[in-house]
Amino acid sequence: MSEERPPDFEGAACPVPLTHRDRIVLGHGGGGRLMSDLIRSVFLPRIGNPTLEIGDDAALPPGLEAIAPGEAIAVSTDAHVVRPLFFPGGDIGRLAVCGTVNDVAMVGAVPLWLTVGFILEEGIEVDVLTRIAESMRAAAAEAGVMIVAGDTKVAERGKVDRLYVSTTGIGRVPAGRQTSGRFARPGDAVLVSGTLGDHGIAVLAAREELAFETAVRSDVAPLNRLVEALYAASSEVHVLRDPTRGGLAAALNEIAQASRVAIELEEAAIPIREEVQAACEILGFDPLQIANEGKLVAILPEEHAEAALAAL
Amino acid sequence: MSEERPPDFEGAACPVPLTHRDRIVLGHGGGGRLMSDLIRSVFLPRIGNPTLEIGDDAALPPGLEAIAPGEAIAVSTDAHVVRPLFFPGGDIGRLAVCGTVNDVAMVGAVPLWLTVGFILEEGIEVDVLTRIAESMRAAAAEAGVMIVAGDTKVAERGKVDRLYVSTTGIGRVPAGRQTSGRFARPGDAVLVSGTLGDHGIAVLAAREELAFETAVRSDVAPLNRLVEALYAASSEVHVLRDPTRGGLAAALNEIAQASRVAIELEEAAIPIREEVQAACEILGFDPLQIANEGKLVAILPEEHAEAALAAL
Repeated sequence: MSEERPPDFEGAACPVPLTHRDRIVLGHGGGGRLMSDLIRSVFLPRIGNPTLEIGDDAALPPGLEAIAPGEAIAVSTDAHVVRPLFFPGGDIGRLAVCGTVNDVAMVGAVPLWLTVGFILEEGIEVDVLTRIAESMRAAAAEAGVMIVAGDTKVAERGKVDRLYVSTTGIGRVPAGRQTSGRFARPGDAVLVSGTLGDHGIAVLAAREELAFETAVRSDVAPLNRLVEALYAASSEVHVLRDPTRGGLAAALNEIAQASRVAIELEEAAIPIREEVQAACEILGFDPLQIANEGKLVAILPEEHAEAALAAL
Repeated sequence: MSEERPPDFEGAACPVPLTHRDRIVLGHGGGGRLMSDLIRSVFLPRIGNPTLEIGDDAALPPGLEAIAPGEAIAVSTDAHVVRPLFFPGGDIGRLAVCGTVNDVAMVGAVPLWLTVGFILEEGIEVDVLTRIAESMRAAAAEAGVMIVAGDTKVAERGKVDRLYVSTTGIGRVPAGRQTSGRFARPGDAVLVSGTLGDHGIAVLAAREELAFETAVRSDVAPLNRLVEALYAASSEVHVLRDPTRGGLAAALNEIAQASRVAIELEEAAIPIREEVQAACEILGFDPLQIANEGKLVAILPEEHAEAALAAL
């Protein structure tokens, strides 16, 4: 080795910025100069940070010292297959960030770091990627998490439904929090943080082949700050769950099984928008089985229910 | 809530085991009973463990106490798009586990935990998933890592090339290790741990449309134990890199840029199998640009090179 820098290196020295009208080709996932151009023009200006930009095979995220001895680490992963990519209230990028932030928060953890893996369809427009990356940036900022590592692959045309995103989240569980689907107890109160079914109905309505219109927007949002408010209001939170795929019904079924309890719902007390109820009637769906992306179920001692509800 | 268990619960109580001849349907990614059946019949018997089986939205993996104060955590993520899924020497499952284990090891970290996200094509055979899950189990055992969280989605027929896998790896960086693509220094020695190009040529030869035959097998393997042997032999390891996409040429280009040095290669000293050389000549490829999945490049002080080579 010498200190001289060779003159004909590909990559960093002279990146070729992609424009919004460009389309992705297979080489953008090939690990060479084209991939470097894509990362530098689209991803780093939005979700970049010093940790991500080092570009080693693994990242060394800062903030590990925030995890005190005796605390636990929480890890969650999600693969996101969403059609259409953009829908009223959100898009696959916001969904990916919020979905994983929320999964980490549902064991009582404070989300810290995210990783993002893209599988792109050859031919997808750079404009689409740019909007999704911008949406991920905004959602990560809203949740207060850092995207520390990423990967991009490109598959042949027709082998991806435009774009898939996989996210993994890592957080710290503050000492003393014991929250799991296994910890519901007889006598506990079951709280829901808002109206149900908004996300699922908004996405269905956005699909061209379904001929119904609705004003419903997806509720997709990070829930980690709400979770902190909940712990501030109630020293004991037995169960947290965000009722995504399968809706409230699936979430409560899982909790009932894991905790070996039966859960009674007062149907009249479950908040459902009129438009969601109407759409479900047209489509023959049960709103309790429709996905949510910005609501949580909290199960906690009856005596904390009022304070917790006020926090929600 | 009461302690009574409702009799008509879906899921855990009476799972319907899938057989090898079954095929995946969209409902296997829906979050309900079918998904539970798939996870219980195919994935948990192979890659299951008490952490993964709790089934909360996030996992709390054990072993955090192994990370001493002042140490760092390493995080890496990969999306795997591989055709064909099975090739001489490996398959997408082994590749996913080893690829991420290796990325974590390349910053000097000891890999601890993995997450796995599957995107399945509707219609893929359960037999295929079973073989891939078994291969992931074996590779994780070989590397000594635990799969702590997972997710499964199913996309419509024709929207996935059979199966994509995303993996994220987390490890601990023992105190004192300072290893990065930025740390190559003038005068350092560049070592390669074995023959180059085996993986890329094995995968290309396994594609039906390419009419060439070769005895070359993929080198896909976990490198974390080799990395430990290297640190045992050399107190200073400036750079580690596994030359995957883009091969040795891309890896060294990246290192040269990040460290602002020039790297000289003695072509005669680079080990390449005769069959790989022959295949590259037929296909018009440069073996230095062909992917490897079980080799590493180590850059370290010249005076440690002999001991390090002996360890490799």
